[in-house]
Amino acid sequence: MNESVERGVAAGSHERLRIRAGAFSGTTAGLAPGNVQANLVILPKALAHDFLRFAQANPKPCPVLAVSEPGSPRLPGVGEDLDIRSDLPRYRVWRRGDLVEEPFDLFHVWRDDLVSFALGCSFSFEEALLEEGIELRHITCGSNVPMYRTNIHCAPAGPFAGPLVVSMRPLNPRDAIRAIQITSRFPSVHGAPVHIGLPETIGIEDLAKPDYGDAVPVESDELPVFWACGVTPQAVIAEVGPDFCITHAPGSMLITDLLNSRLASL
Amino acid sequence: MNESVERGVAAGSHERLRIRAGAFSGTTAGLAPGNVQANLVILPKALAHDFLRFAQANPKPCPVLAVSEPGSPRLPGVGEDLDIRSDLPRYRVWRRGDLVEEPFDLFHVWRDDLVSFALGCSFSFEEALLEEGIELRHITCGSNVPMYRTNIHCAPAGPFAGPLVVSMRPLNPRDAIRAIQITSRFPSVHGAPVHIGLPETIGIEDLAKPDYGDAVPVESDELPVFWACGVTPQAVIAEVGPDFCITHAPGSMLITDLLNSRLASL
Repeated sequence: MNESVERGVAAGSHERLRIRAGAFSGTTAGLAPGNVQANLVILPKALAHDFLRFAQANPKPCPVLAVSEPGSPRLPGVGEDLDIRSDLPRYRVWRRGDLVEEPFDLFHVWRDDLVSFALGCSFSFEEALLEEGIELRHITCGSNVPMYRTNIHCAPAGPFAGPLVVSMRPLNPRDAIRAIQITSRFPSVHGAPVHIGLPETIGIEDLAKPDYGDAVPVESDELPVFWACGVTPQAVIAEVGPDFCITHAPGSMLITDLLNSRLASL
Repeated sequence: MNESVERGVAAGSHERLRIRAGAFSGTTAGLAPGNVQANLVILPKALAHDFLRFAQANPKPCPVLAVSEPGSPRLPGVGEDLDIRSDLPRYRVWRRGDLVEEPFDLFHVWRDDLVSFALGCSFSFEEALLEEGIELRHITCGSNVPMYRTNIHCAPAGPFAGPLVVSMRPLNPRDAIRAIQITSRFPSVHGAPVHIGLPETIGIEDLAKPDYGDAVPVESDELPVFWACGVTPQAVIAEVGPDFCITHAPGSMLITDLLNSRLASL
């Protein structure tokens, strides 16, 4: 293991143990900088195969980083000593599509048939953009990235179907071109944008009215650039309304041992 | 030498010999498909160093593929048996910035102090775009690509200075993103676009009035995408008006032995 990889494991493990001990329950943004953070979806085994097929068919909104054995709280490959039941600051428990609880751990609801999915998150490519000096408006504004339901249909699998949800970042044309190059290197965390410049052609009527997150200003010398968003699987699952399901709470991500820089495909 | 490289050498040599023999004097578009075609600039040695510095400082409009020894008609590295004085269908001879002759060979004007530059040309990246099924409007229209002088200044070197000239291809947003990815792989033939979507911000008032080439329609679901253009060095040289200078005639390019596919940086 080289030195930076070792540092990644140490930082990931350190933060997860701190969270597990109950010493931290806020948003994970900024924790273990350089480490990959992931969206979490936990489903009963009966639905897991269809969900994995859905993710496989829609890799831009649903980039799978790891899948657990049924009933196992481990996710080997993304965290050495990870316990998915305790290592996120906060969770959301859903029953038949309704949010029923936002617990700090999952021991009381854990079942032997649960399968955990860690899905790539835009934090990873945003770090790469920020490192090149590209301004991200929602970060400048201190708000959540604006997200929109589009008229683009995800490829369906079993009960899972629905529209692609995208996040939007306004960029001047030069930064937009560079951002396409940079994020193309990160296919496992949403990859290249899915759209640029003409939101009405993908069913977005008004940029000032996002379906999720907060609106941000788009200047006259900027283009809106749209990436496939990890909210897509959450919206699709909410639509399906499975009997039982767990996700991370917004902003309360799984901190992995993986390094963002190591996700680059080249 | 592998088989495809060998085929490239054979095809390049075959076409150059045909042109040298006077058997062909039209446009080189479509000849030796797969082979790199190049813009040609020939300058007296006294100006050659400044011109090479200009190209080095402006690699997107002026990607240098090869430079000759002073006085030598060879360009080793781009063509085995190449004679720059006879292997293009047609040339332009300039004196003090005026076009004085369009000869079929250069033997009568050749001098011992001339330095030849082969510069990358958009034919190479257009081939890569067409191979992925991306429509190029000017080809569909059977016209020349529209080109525009921008308000972007090239980095000056010696007497060489002037605005960046760009070529424009209208693309739908999905193809525009893909085209950015594809052309990013070809830095030696203009590389990634320099602009997308907001022509007025780079000093282009009216897309229907190109400074060179022909206007093409841009549909409402398309963005204009702009690449640095090989007309830039020609416009800059025309501005400088050197005592003596030779270029290729429009559309009458240098056919090299190099393969477009081999120019891909990854």
